[in-house]
Amino acid sequence: MDYKAVEVKDIEFIKSIINDSERVLVGENINEEYSHDELGGIKKVPDIVAKVLTTEEVSKIMKYAYENNIPVTARGAGTGLVGAAVALYGGIVIDLSGMNKILELDEENLTLTVEPGVLLMELSKFVEENDLFYPPDPGEKTATIGGNISTNAGGMRAVKYGVTRDYVRGLEVVLPNGEIVNFGGKVVKNSSGYSLKDLIIGSEGTLAIITKAILKLLPLPKKAISLLIPFPDLDRAIETVPKIIKSKSIPTAIEFMQRAAIVASEEYLGKKFPDSQSDAYLLLTFDGNSKEEIEKNYDNVAKICLDAGALDVLISDTEERQESIWKARGAFLEAIKASTTEMDEVDVVVPRNKVAEFVKFTYELEKKLNIRIKTFGHAGDGNLHVYILRDDLKEDKWKEKLNETMEYMYNKAKELKGQVSGEHGIGYAKVPYLKESLSRETLEIMRGIKNVFDPKNILNPGKVCE
Amino acid sequence: MDYKAVEVKDIEFIKSIINDSERVLVGENINEEYSHDELGGIKKVPDIVAKVLTTEEVSKIMKYAYENNIPVTARGAGTGLVGAAVALYGGIVIDLSGMNKILELDEENLTLTVEPGVLLMELSKFVEENDLFYPPDPGEKTATIGGNISTNAGGMRAVKYGVTRDYVRGLEVVLPNGEIVNFGGKVVKNSSGYSLKDLIIGSEGTLAIITKAILKLLPLPKKAISLLIPFPDLDRAIETVPKIIKSKSIPTAIEFMQRAAIVASEEYLGKKFPDSQSDAYLLLTFDGNSKEEIEKNYDNVAKICLDAGALDVLISDTEERQESIWKARGAFLEAIKASTTEMDEVDVVVPRNKVAEFVKFTYELEKKLNIRIKTFGHAGDGNLHVYILRDDLKEDKWKEKLNETMEYMYNKAKELKGQVSGEHGIGYAKVPYLKESLSRETLEIMRGIKNVFDPKNILNPGKVCE
Repeated sequence: MDYKAVEVKDIEFIKSIINDSERVLVGENINEEYSHDELGGIKKVPDIVAKVLTTEEVSKIMKYAYENNIPVTARGAGTGLVGAAVALYGGIVIDLSGMNKILELDEENLTLTVEPGVLLMELSKFVEENDLFYPPDPGEKTATIGGNISTNAGGMRAVKYGVTRDYVRGLEVVLPNGEIVNFGGKVVKNSSGYSLKDLIIGSEGTLAIITKAILKLLPLPKKAISLLIPFPDLDRAIETVPKIIKSKSIPTAIEFMQRAAIVASEEYLGKKFPDSQSDAYLLLTFDGNSKEEIEKNYDNVAKICLDAGALDVLISDTEERQESIWKARGAFLEAIKASTTEMDEVDVVVPRNKVAEFVKFTYELEKKLNIRIKTFGHAGDGNLHVYILRDDLKEDKWKEKLNETMEYMYNKAKELKGQVSGEHGIGYAKVPYLKESLSRETLEIMRGIKNVFDPKNILNPGKVCE
Repeated sequence: MDYKAVEVKDIEFIKSIINDSERVLVGENINEEYSHDELGGIKKVPDIVAKVLTTEEVSKIMKYAYENNIPVTARGAGTGLVGAAVALYGGIVIDLSGMNKILELDEENLTLTVEPGVLLMELSKFVEENDLFYPPDPGEKTATIGGNISTNAGGMRAVKYGVTRDYVRGLEVVLPNGEIVNFGGKVVKNSSGYSLKDLIIGSEGTLAIITKAILKLLPLPKKAISLLIPFPDLDRAIETVPKIIKSKSIPTAIEFMQRAAIVASEEYLGKKFPDSQSDAYLLLTFDGNSKEEIEKNYDNVAKICLDAGALDVLISDTEERQESIWKARGAFLEAIKASTTEMDEVDVVVPRNKVAEFVKFTYELEKKLNIRIKTFGHAGDGNLHVYILRDDLKEDKWKEKLNETMEYMYNKAKELKGQVSGEHGIGYAKVPYLKESLSRETLEIMRGIKNVFDPKNILNPGKVCE
């Protein structure tokens, strides 16, 4: 791709837009953090970082970049795992983390209007203080809501409540040419032309930059109870999940975990898990408005699990106990990361009755390819997080084994009618696997759409379908 | 637009694909029904009607039409209200109502796979017999699921359960060039490139033809209770709705209705409504798994209504009584239609705390323009159905008044940050209003997307954003 190199006059122009020298970073003032995300396996320092505070600033920068053919990459908290926020071709990084205001809670319409830089943990805290509920619950609470929308983040509660897409009513975005437009709004229904809002959701900053979002809220469930259910082995644990779904009791979350992950997490956090004697566990949550209502729901599920070979059913109905369990679950990624030298991940999603088959496949692969693989994930929605660990492998051997492992896994996911990414997105790292997974026609349509929004290909180039 | 006129050889070719002379209609064999929908105000007889039974037939017809530049319009049950299924430029109508098989109920993944011609009423019946639930509940039960997906139909239960979009997990579609592709699947989460599935939903047959759909199901709530709540006037009824939403009790449905509509419906059905003494009513439904759970929920709402001036709260907890009420509600459209010579409708959606303001505006308009206007609709989700009645107006006067009334209403909807259509779509009839409502950039993007899918503009031309 042929972009204009950033020159002094470009820097001067961006500075004139921002008009606050501390918010325009160049050269050595650009923190190393801006060159990568949490795990994307790619590094590139941008030429300019613009820490914007308003939609107008975003619009003016885009307009200038469009006219001058300079690539632009939007960035939130940088917690992505596939390199989507890395400025592959340099140019300008627009850092939206400073646009972090909660703009309006509209209790009559049950909507929350926010800027994109609001952190997920701040958003949840705010709405819960108002006795309301924003259900999407990705593990990474320090991600921004803009990033969550851009990847259509899922999280634990997808089993019952769905994903980020289901809670976005309206978006204000800046198009690659700098125009500011609105898609959707506070309305509950909408059949007014193609749903451009839904096209932006999950587009990983390649079609437009999100500068405002109107989110749908629910009433806060008054009570939640977690069940930790030990099984003699993982197969039996995971194979119970389709039976739970079939029983028509819908838990809020169903996670699976193995002793190894729990032990790693105990070591990482320096805290004991309520139980780590068994090989495998299901962790379920139920929520509702009364203890009785929830009990009725989980009694049945507990029985299904015991019939399917569960060793026990541990009920956590105090907030402290639940927090300790979910904290351990939340630390899996960090604990695994701390246990090795480098790692990469596979975030496939398969139909939920295929999870057991996929996990078994990763075991076989671990033996066959002689590489350490750790798996945990959302058994209730079919979204797996599989980590391939480098340990002491040499660079070239690591690359070779990693590629081989990934090829096997993505082929398996395709065979099971799964998709490349359940919630982490495609970014840079998964582009080759998305290409293999989609039909030629589908890829051509995606590229055509990219071209409609961004004919000069200046917005986050090299990502998703390129 | 410059299309090839249909000739004898084209008819012969279509016949060779279908290979069943009774499924290819031409000339006088084309029933008049194929020239219009339920209310679109436009008529055009197609040159050929192909009553397809398989995806392959659709694919072959599209391929031929694409190569030969013949326009194609997909049609389900023809229950639309905006002319989307009318072949404006003639050519081929593909009638999908014969592709009406329920293909698979997957209880482990809680999905139902269907052909597009399955009627909504058949679909609901089938899943409910299996103790499962497909929540979208548009008034028109003889519509096809393919049509529902194409308009992103909403219905009564959107307040609690959302709209059709929220229940479509995967689609098989035939592209304008005849290629068969799949978007999404049985998976619960998906962040694998742009959501083309969501682009097809609500695109009214202009981007591709839906030939199969994978739908998400829920467990069937065990019980439902309806409350019919009389108010001294409509203002007080509607102004109560934001208070209900704010109270954090989410009913399944909240409809508003006026005595005039009830009386018309009583006459039309020849059946008495439980109460028609009051000027205005709210009709609410609550569902759940036990009587106690539901009671807890509606007790609070009943109190809010009484505090807000409701005259009474009539509880219907028998199936017969509920059916009689909802049947009356379901007959409003037909009853109004039967009361006049001709009518047209406005299907705007506004934020739910703006419903009262919009309805008041239609009253003022009725007086100001001296034309009969009837309104009912979904108070709980902000989607209004406003009918403008011709009565004994002469043709030119009717057109003039209708246009004037519509202009006023769409401007008002825009002022209230509403959208042109909540659930009926744009089709042919609402194209000018969509154009006025969207920004130039948004319209250009929609047209660009249309061009990506359908560069020859042969699929349902003249609709949505043209």
